Amino acid sequence: MKDKLNHIAVLTSGGDAPGMNAGIRAVVRSCAFHDIKCSGIYRGYQGLIENDFEVLNARSVRNIINRGGTFLKSARSKEFRTKEGRQKAYENLISQGVDALVVIGGDGTFNGAVVFNEEHDFPIVGMPGTIDNDINGTDHTIGYDTALNTVVEAIDKIRDTANSHNRLFLVEVMGRDAGDIALNAGIGAGAEEILIPEEDLGTDRLLESLKRSKKSGKTSSIIVVSEGDKIGKNIFELAEFIETNLEDYEVRVTVLGHIQRGGTPSCYDRVLASRLGIGAVDALLAGERDIMIGTVHGKVTSVPFKEAVAGRNKIDLDLIRVADITST
Amino acid sequence: MKDKLNHIAVLTSGGDAPGMNAGIRAVVRSCAFHDIKCSGIYRGYQGLIENDFEVLNARSVRNIINRGGTFLKSARSKEFRTKEGRQKAYENLISQGVDALVVIGGDGTFNGAVVFNEEHDFPIVGMPGTIDNDINGTDHTIGYDTALNTVVEAIDKIRDTANSHNRLFLVEVMGRDAGDIALNAGIGAGAEEILIPEEDLGTDRLLESLKRSKKSGKTSSIIVVSEGDKIGKNIFELAEFIETNLEDYEVRVTVLGHIQRGGTPSCYDRVLASRLGIGAVDALLAGERDIMIGTVHGKVTSVPFKEAVAGRNKIDLDLIRVADITST
Amino acid sequence: MKDKLNHIAVLTSGGDAPGMNAGIRAVVRSCAFHDIKCSGIYRGYQGLIENDFEVLNARSVRNIINRGGTFLKSARSKEFRTKEGRQKAYENLISQGVDALVVIGGDGTFNGAVVFNEEHDFPIVGMPGTIDNDINGTDHTIGYDTALNTVVEAIDKIRDTANSHNRLFLVEVMGRDAGDIALNAGIGAGAEEILIPEEDLGTDRLLESLKRSKKSGKTSSIIVVSEGDKIGKNIFELAEFIETNLEDYEVRVTVLGHIQRGGTPSCYDRVLASRLGIGAVDALLAGERDIMIGTVHGKVTSVPFKEAVAGRNKIDLDLIRVADITST
Amino acid sequence: MKDKLNHIAVLTSGGDAPGMNAGIRAVVRSCAFHDIKCSGIYRGYQGLIENDFEVLNARSVRNIINRGGTFLKSARSKEFRTKEGRQKAYENLISQGVDALVVIGGDGTFNGAVVFNEEHDFPIVGMPGTIDNDINGTDHTIGYDTALNTVVEAIDKIRDTANSHNRLFLVEVMGRDAGDIALNAGIGAGAEEILIPEEDLGTDRLLESLKRSKKSGKTSSIIVVSEGDKIGKNIFELAEFIETNLEDYEVRVTVLGHIQRGGTPSCYDRVLASRLGIGAVDALLAGERDIMIGTVHGKVTSVPFKEAVAGRNKIDLDLIRVADITST
Repeated sequence: MKDKLNHIAVLTSGGDAPGMNAGIRAVVRSCAFHDIKCSGIYRGYQGLIENDFEVLNARSVRNIINRGGTFLKSARSKEFRTKEGRQKAYENLISQGVDALVVIGGDGTFNGAVVFNEEHDFPIVGMPGTIDNDINGTDHTIGYDTALNTVVEAIDKIRDTANSHNRLFLVEVMGRDAGDIALNAGIGAGAEEILIPEEDLGTDRLLESLKRSKKSGKTSSIIVVSEGDKIGKNIFELAEFIETNLEDYEVRVTVLGHIQRGGTPSCYDRVLASRLGIGAVDALLAGERDIMIGTVHGKVTSVPFKEAVAGRNKIDLDLIRVADITST
Repeated sequence: MKDKLNHIAVLTSGGDAPGMNAGIRAVVRSCAFHDIKCSGIYRGYQGLIENDFEVLNARSVRNIINRGGTFLKSARSKEFRTKEGRQKAYENLISQGVDALVVIGGDGTFNGAVVFNEEHDFPIVGMPGTIDNDINGTDHTIGYDTALNTVVEAIDKIRDTANSHNRLFLVEVMGRDAGDIALNAGIGAGAEEILIPEEDLGTDRLLESLKRSKKSGKTSSIIVVSEGDKIGKNIFELAEFIETNLEDYEVRVTVLGHIQRGGTPSCYDRVLASRLGIGAVDALLAGERDIMIGTVHGKVTSVPFKEAVAGRNKIDLDLIRVADITST
Repeated sequence: MKDKLNHIAVLTSGGDAPGMNAGIRAVVRSCAFHDIKCSGIYRGYQGLIENDFEVLNARSVRNIINRGGTFLKSARSKEFRTKEGRQKAYENLISQGVDALVVIGGDGTFNGAVVFNEEHDFPIVGMPGTIDNDINGTDHTIGYDTALNTVVEAIDKIRDTANSHNRLFLVEVMGRDAGDIALNAGIGAGAEEILIPEEDLGTDRLLESLKRSKKSGKTSSIIVVSEGDKIGKNIFELAEFIETNLEDYEVRVTVLGHIQRGGTPSCYDRVLASRLGIGAVDALLAGERDIMIGTVHGKVTSVPFKEAVAGRNKIDLDLIRVADITST
Repeated sequence: MKDKLNHIAVLTSGGDAPGMNAGIRAVVRSCAFHDIKCSGIYRGYQGLIENDFEVLNARSVRNIINRGGTFLKSARSKEFRTKEGRQKAYENLISQGVDALVVIGGDGTFNGAVVFNEEHDFPIVGMPGTIDNDINGTDHTIGYDTALNTVVEAIDKIRDTANSHNRLFLVEVMGRDAGDIALNAGIGAGAEEILIPEEDLGTDRLLESLKRSKKSGKTSSIIVVSEGDKIGKNIFELAEFIETNLEDYEVRVTVLGHIQRGGTPSCYDRVLASRLGIGAVDALLAGERDIMIGTVHGKVTSVPFKEAVAGRNKIDLDLIRVADITST
């Protein structure tokens, strides 16, 4: 690394998440504050390979803190998985005079950074941006809180119609292999059952629970199903299974889909992304690299990339009990 | 009909729609205002058959104007389609001392009222409550405006992610055989294409239009597809068709589903429902029956049930031109 | 006017309103559709005087349909009220090669256009953009529907706390001399009383009504007060007056203020603005001028500027009755 | 305390906050789960004195998790500040057969509990419910996260109009003596300046900062002012001061007011309240008393009442730096 940091570049990669724009803004303004040149790279690692850079100043990131998505756009890059692709990427960074890179994304993004670093000695710092909250070493990922609110709002609407018709709704939510969205949004939305990959309820217990629930006087029900749930059936098969095995239940399926990735970021995500963006530049200035900036117990901190992407199992068992009791 | 109206009952039937609660509230408070006893009937015609009545006063409908769904619940009743079912329903009305009935729902609801009236001479007035806007004789149905906002908000979120990834999204919206939701929400959400049952664009023209759109510099697109669209493919087949026939298009499908029926009603729907509820009681007091209360050119008015449910073709061709030009 | 229309300019003036961006977008894209050059003028008439033009194409107005405010910005221009100012404005239009002008705003904007036209023979067409809905010759102005939803949402929140504390809230809403916002949002929010400039309830009747309301079992109340109300007291004086004259009433005041002008436009406002923008270009192409484009009974139509700004009194007396009955 | 816990009562006191209903629901359902009788007390300590109890079961708290305010209502009780009042309260608890009490509120509520306990040996556990986040011993109070989102949403709307008009807006937000809302919502809303009670910026530095900001190309600004700010001027005087001392600044004031207390609770607040409600019953079952249940570092924990209400100074100085840098 050169003695002084003169030029930082920033990119977003992988699935977009609300708050990414706030994160970019914080990186750009922090660079302006420290008098460091800042470039944005469009379309993640792919744009890095295609040399798609643009110099950004404090005014370039005006009025984006409240916008979902990422104005730098994101992409998955097959080429970056090749040695040749990464070589091109490196050459572009050098030819643009970039001294360090901030990457905002999830585990795929950080894994890419690790491989890149093994081949090319280059300072990279990461920021966790994904709605799935499936990254180690940070209380939350950027976008997760907004996604929870989006899901809860959607289920509130579905409950209007569930209540009006005495129906059972299966609602599939995102989260890949992590049940965080399903579990928290399920509690928040007052779901009667929550199916997550981390815990196998089993279809028999599900049926029994639904029967109990009906007996206790409930006339409508919401079951939140994580997309990564391992119950052995997809959500439409599960609906059929329930209709076949329970009497008097009219079952409906809703797959919430991509609305969960968008939307105006919540205050929490905007503040988190702002803090992490500033933390990322601080870390680079302090000579740190190969790390992700996160918050632990509310404080900005850093964790090596390899730890960040290590298999995680963060589901709070306490929350499962909360879900059980509050759906009494 | 008896000389004086002493007792009015109200029910909601068919799919629920935001604003139904505001409509019930207006009927109940109008009865209170005119010193008429008012009963709510739960679960539509089915509750009528099962004698599921409750007396409602002005305080019973407190704090419901802002709630989606219908607190009287709704149901589809097979039994009401039988002569015996309708006979029971009539007997319950008589035994409860009800003089007139207000039904809030869509064409199925009004058709039921027509048949009932042919057999049993009983004063019924209807209010159009459905998000589909597929009823004649009213500018809009209760719930339609809210559904438009819900759809537009959802597509705004999807556009965040479409823009971030240069993707093509197919978004399926409700509306049964009517393209009103698709066309208006499509314009409002700035969709690049809108597929409605009233107009067959044809898959060839669709492909061409997408190619043109890409050439003109658009890197992401939203296509809104009405659930009743007659393009001959379901939305997943359509996605495959596009991916097969166009290069470089990553296509995603989102079926908005039941969130469209729920949610806090818009101001427009609350005011509309309030006006129609008062209009319904006014009409009964004036001796009218077998009619639906709607607004035409913004004024409360009435139309015979048979006209309300007659085949409609309200799509404003002007709007198709607006969609074409604004997606330039 | 020249034989052919080659160049149209568009500006927004007066108070901003949600949907103005959708209106600009429709003008720009309609120009693109008809192969007419289009320029945006920043900061309304003031920017016209200062020659602050920018050429806009179909891509310039990407992703603005869902944004509140106006990206062309707005301003009130003292200079445009002088002959010299208007002369400069005219010279700029000519030197830029502009053939016709679209102005989006309220009565001040249209009055400016009328005066300008008396001095300088120049084709101008207007679009009604103001949350106040105080323009003749159109069902609604752009921004009005969004403002209603914003007000109703805000009052829904205030009612949470009013209900929790058995309090009386006075809520001041915008609307200048027009009570449309107060009356419609008041009905929509279930307000117990609505004070509008068009009807003087009188403080005595207000007190009596509040007493009656309390007796009937209401423990909290919302009174919506239009900013133009003529009750002879400002809202803080009114609060004091009520506290002095009624026992057991804890009164709180909330002035909603500028949140009413902002926010993501509703679907209705986006569609309305899109239709009017296309209508404005259509009208200019048809040789019309000195008119405002509006919708009457849902159809796009035009009205001379002088009629649009003529004193209006559109309050629907029917709605006052609706307010009275539904707050029973 | 009796050997077994047979009957728990719950009340809400002080200012209402979004999520209180979710908290009540969790207490009630936790009681149902543990087979404990549960009573709700209306209007806080005042209702306790007036013996305003109602038995609640799992079904009583249906469909309230998504509602702002508190269905048990809240009140400030002068009578509870007297020994006689507290004596009556105690007698009611005994005569109702209540074994333990859960109180949801802020410092006033907990101080009341402390005094009550000094006189009457009675098990009480508290839950922090206030938007102000001014309680020790918990990461956040119930309602705070929702209030942040409400404020940020409101300022997003105000920014639409600020941007459209190149104006300076002063926005007053709640928080009593705590600047948490102002600081976090200010960062989230991208405010140019944030005035909080914990830090005295001074009017001179404010003016300078505004001048610098204008020079750097900003044409509109938002200043968030905490209601407890000690700058020595109220917000209207501050506006006048700025207009007098800076050229070319049109200043507007908005006092957000009571909308900040209401609204549908965020997912975070619903989950937090659910966890604390269950934690409160768990604590009582474990024989704990005179404590508040909170979360520290995301884990449910307890803190003595006296610590919870001890003077706090939680403002994260790090956040002030984040605010400074991101408003560059």
